[in-house]
Amino acid sequence: MLAARVPTTIWARRAEIAENINHKHSNEAYLSGFELSPELRATNELEAAIRGASVIIMAVPSHGYRDVLAQAAAHIPEQTPIISLSKGIEAETLMRMTEVTFDVLPDHDPNVIGVMSGPNLANEIMAGQPAATVVAVANADVRRSVQHMITTSSFRAYTNRDVIGCESAGAVKNAMAIAAGMAAGKGFGDNTLATLVTRALVEMTRLGIAMGGEARTFSGLAGMGDLFATCSSSQSRNHKVGFGLGCGRDLQSIIDDMDMVAEGVKSTRGILALAERHGVEMPIAQGVGAVLYEGLDVAEALQRLMMREARSEFD
Amino acid sequence: MLAARVPTTIWARRAEIAENINHKHSNEAYLSGFELSPELRATNELEAAIRGASVIIMAVPSHGYRDVLAQAAAHIPEQTPIISLSKGIEAETLMRMTEVTFDVLPDHDPNVIGVMSGPNLANEIMAGQPAATVVAVANADVRRSVQHMITTSSFRAYTNRDVIGCESAGAVKNAMAIAAGMAAGKGFGDNTLATLVTRALVEMTRLGIAMGGEARTFSGLAGMGDLFATCSSSQSRNHKVGFGLGCGRDLQSIIDDMDMVAEGVKSTRGILALAERHGVEMPIAQGVGAVLYEGLDVAEALQRLMMREARSEFD
Repeated sequence: MLAARVPTTIWARRAEIAENINHKHSNEAYLSGFELSPELRATNELEAAIRGASVIIMAVPSHGYRDVLAQAAAHIPEQTPIISLSKGIEAETLMRMTEVTFDVLPDHDPNVIGVMSGPNLANEIMAGQPAATVVAVANADVRRSVQHMITTSSFRAYTNRDVIGCESAGAVKNAMAIAAGMAAGKGFGDNTLATLVTRALVEMTRLGIAMGGEARTFSGLAGMGDLFATCSSSQSRNHKVGFGLGCGRDLQSIIDDMDMVAEGVKSTRGILALAERHGVEMPIAQGVGAVLYEGLDVAEALQRLMMREARSEFD
Repeated sequence: MLAARVPTTIWARRAEIAENINHKHSNEAYLSGFELSPELRATNELEAAIRGASVIIMAVPSHGYRDVLAQAAAHIPEQTPIISLSKGIEAETLMRMTEVTFDVLPDHDPNVIGVMSGPNLANEIMAGQPAATVVAVANADVRRSVQHMITTSSFRAYTNRDVIGCESAGAVKNAMAIAAGMAAGKGFGDNTLATLVTRALVEMTRLGIAMGGEARTFSGLAGMGDLFATCSSSQSRNHKVGFGLGCGRDLQSIIDDMDMVAEGVKSTRGILALAERHGVEMPIAQGVGAVLYEGLDVAEALQRLMMREARSEFD
């Protein structure tokens, strides 16, 4: 969509994907069935993709983010906006992707490093269904220019200054989507899901504020919006993992059947470490972690959540 | 569920429903397929249902609420807690149900008049699926006693002092569920729904605060939780109305096919009147109203929402 409006080059790790995009205007591996804009250029050479770019959009899974950015580093001018779409936490450092960016590029202008986040399932956007996203970056000019660059008749971009809030929400929601999938896999319906998601938002907000985010961001598209879409969608990879677990399947066999990364499987550990660092209580994330890493039974995990002492909704 | 723990009598307008509950422990008209507790008593005599009650739970659609309460009024002591489950606005007066209660019973203790609200689709609760609700009433003792009365191993009650917030959220969400149903009926998926629901929560919160509610209530179970369940559930009557409209059906024919009341069809008008009274902007509710009452095309209504000027998420 972007390519129809501004010259856009996509970097693909594999040469055959780049060739397919350039010659057949399709990306069978990741966006099967959709015709891409004939204006979209692709290359498997990182330097060629970045050269002369006025904005760099990083859509690399969190575990590969640092490496890819480090390879590109020498070719990125200090004032070029770098917007991350990645929703994860770096396992070793517990850094958000904008922190990794600044760690790899310490001379870069921090005010042009940001994120884009929201309820943005790729297939639906490609199908032209109405959707919206949030562009969060400190520099107001960058915020507005990226906003205008990506807004179309069916895709609406809102701006927000709160990079930390948007980014932490995006990372935490993946763990929560696993919990939602577990409940669905157990056969529970809309009441259970709504209760889980509401309490998940409370946890997500609590951690995000402790990390430096703003409360209201979590009630917006990058918080509640993305959480809602990911937790109610069987298209979400994290939801699929949870659903399989809820059905009694083995984690490894679920992962083996998927061709894309479910960020939450790894990042839940990082989220729990961040919660501990900031002294924040996150019972749902803990339940997901116990199922993923300690083999706790899903029914037992859900039971523990429901059995917590009944109390005031807002302490 | 309540009946298994405390003596419970239900009032049914129709004698045959009361008889069925007493003799067959079932309510085929409204809870088909579920076996009710043999402890549950039913009567079609209002006075008999209320006599000696330590708590009165009002589960009457908003358009019949005042009449039923007025019939019962002479038999209700001034200190008996009255908890409303009704989610609507009285059309003629724009009163919430707790306001109607106080209007009918001006000598009643206002601190024991409250609501219960949350993501509580009846069929799922009857099936024993985990769910939670919020009990909101000013008197702390009443709050706690109702909380303990209704909490079971699968149904968890939280307390909240904010009656206005919980109650206004419950009324407004019905209009929003119609909007969500419209989008689903048009074939739109999780991105569109998540965007709509997120913006719906913003509207709902804005009106609720103007009416005297607390912001955080709207991020809780009676706000976001109930909104999430109602907007994502095809079980919701309001969602069904919206879905039919989104599919191009005529409003009257949709209503004719339903055997229960979809509160939002009437209450959207009241919500819009309240929004005007309080000077609050509610574009989604306005869109729903234009479709319901002015015959605006659903596609046009959704289009107008998406085409609003792109801007900052939180002005």
